[in-house]
Amino acid sequence: MLDYPPSLRKLIAALRRLPGVGPRGAERMALHILESEPALALELAEALREARERIRPCPKSRFFSEGGGLSPMFSDPARDSGLVCVVEHDADVIAFEKSGAYKGLYFVLGGCLSPLDGIGPEDLHIPSLLAWVGEGGVREVILGLSADTKGETTSLYLTRELKAAGIPVTRLATGLSIGTSLEYADALTLSHALQDRKPL
Amino acid sequence: MLDYPPSLRKLIAALRRLPGVGPRGAERMALHILESEPALALELAEALREARERIRPCPKSRFFSEGGGLSPMFSDPARDSGLVCVVEHDADVIAFEKSGAYKGLYFVLGGCLSPLDGIGPEDLHIPSLLAWVGEGGVREVILGLSADTKGETTSLYLTRELKAAGIPVTRLATGLSIGTSLEYADALTLSHALQDRKPL
Repeated sequence: MLDYPPSLRKLIAALRRLPGVGPRGAERMALHILESEPALALELAEALREARERIRPCPKSRFFSEGGGLSPMFSDPARDSGLVCVVEHDADVIAFEKSGAYKGLYFVLGGCLSPLDGIGPEDLHIPSLLAWVGEGGVREVILGLSADTKGETTSLYLTRELKAAGIPVTRLATGLSIGTSLEYADALTLSHALQDRKPL
Repeated sequence: MLDYPPSLRKLIAALRRLPGVGPRGAERMALHILESEPALALELAEALREARERIRPCPKSRFFSEGGGLSPMFSDPARDSGLVCVVEHDADVIAFEKSGAYKGLYFVLGGCLSPLDGIGPEDLHIPSLLAWVGEGGVREVILGLSADTKGETTSLYLTRELKAAGIPVTRLATGLSIGTSLEYADALTLSHALQDRKPL
């Protein structure tokens, strides 16, 4: 059976490994790339190499950094350097930034504890976090983790470690999402919202 | 506002130019690439460069060819070299091959006539097709174009040109549902359409 030439099949296979790309999607992308100006393929190839070579975690915050230096968040005088918000992934930093509601620093943990998946404290960047707060100057650590079992387990673990280091720890409030109709809220969310109710 | 470092933003922008990739999808892909083994990014970058450099149209069939030599279809003794099926796009060749109902050669036209989009005969590979049939040895040209207005217009034009050159022309039977682009036809429909092809 006649098929695409080897380099094209290789390109389809490589595109197929991207998240959310199926066999048909990878084929469409590859054909689009071959039919477009050569610049499209070459710019994408160059961007891949460059990003893979230059993006390194910042040694202090573990957030993506160009060239692996300190993240620009540390040199921003508008940020409160006494506040550290701990998040699971780099993308969570961007989510907080988009909210516009936070002006402190971030620490990217690299995931959550998950004993069932074999992810223990040694797989996360917990020592870097403890080293940072150990330097002094941190007034409060905010745990900005997911409101699920893994996030819960991780929050409990970090609270113990950070309190032992004498650092005040808070976590995000749980309750109704803004815009949610009460009839669609799940039982657990409602029960948390009731427990954490606020006087008006 | 804190954002991803420049090389990461550049990678997201480059991925965004692929078909079917939105801003959120491009971000997910870029983060996945940075979190995976470096091999993923480097292999994709290499596959892009290699495919773009090495894939050229075969000078006779205009189908993708490794290095731009004659397509392997010409050296396949199991193929009937007296039959030429004219298709719009490279992907259509694969669709016919998957149907298993055709064992001749292919010619990739590069699109269809479309006066409204400013695509005239000079934008397609019609001279290469006429040169091929002019060499002699072609017993029949099968027009394997989409069953839509553009395909129809193109079939009429090619029929006139090929008949003037003394070549018998057939077209796919209208087992294809009218309005369906050939790209989306299933293997069985294609195989029926080949069997029921009609002389013009």
